[in-house]
Amino acid sequence: MIKKLTPDELSTLLAELKQWQLSEDSNAIHRSFKFADFNEAFGFMTRVAIKAQEMDHHPEWSNVYDKVEITLSTHAAKGLTERDARLARFIDSIT
Amino acid sequence: MIKKLTPDELSTLLAELKQWQLSEDSNAIHRSFKFADFNEAFGFMTRVAIKAQEMDHHPEWSNVYDKVEITLSTHAAKGLTERDARLARFIDSIT
Repeated sequence: MIKKLTPDELSTLLAELKQWQLSEDSNAIHRSFKFADFNEAFGFMTRVAIKAQEMDHHPEWSNVYDKVEITLSTHAAKGLTERDARLARFIDSIT
Repeated sequence: MIKKLTPDELSTLLAELKQWQLSEDSNAIHRSFKFADFNEAFGFMTRVAIKAQEMDHHPEWSNVYDKVEITLSTHAAKGLTERDARLARFIDSIT
């Protein structure tokens, strides 16, 4: 069973992931993305989808044309875990 | 300039697209989808994305694991048009 990050671990993570915002309940992180057009936005989503499937850890996300909104959380842990950190780092590495 | 469907055309369309729901302001249609897993859900989204790009008419949509929510509307016409009807028919044809 994957365990929720401690408050200290979460602070360290948020200092690292500067472009992600913590949800009010501290159980999720969110980032908004804007691309040149739909092709770029969906291309990005496809890269994230393949990584998510490999990790067996999936985002909650939405898309409108050139915009993508991503929320990460680990339902099994009812909060943020190292899996969210890894997926967020991957996402940051391709944007 | 693409024109908004008339109330009569909209009624006919809604009778045809039985699985889509009209928004309160009558300017959009919405359908929810559930798949076996993320692979199926994102595979479906990819087929819709390729069609949308070909049509130059894009959905507003969100995904959480095996679920996909799609809203169709034509911003340039501030309502529903024949483009939404065509994209909805394509989506129905692959589900």
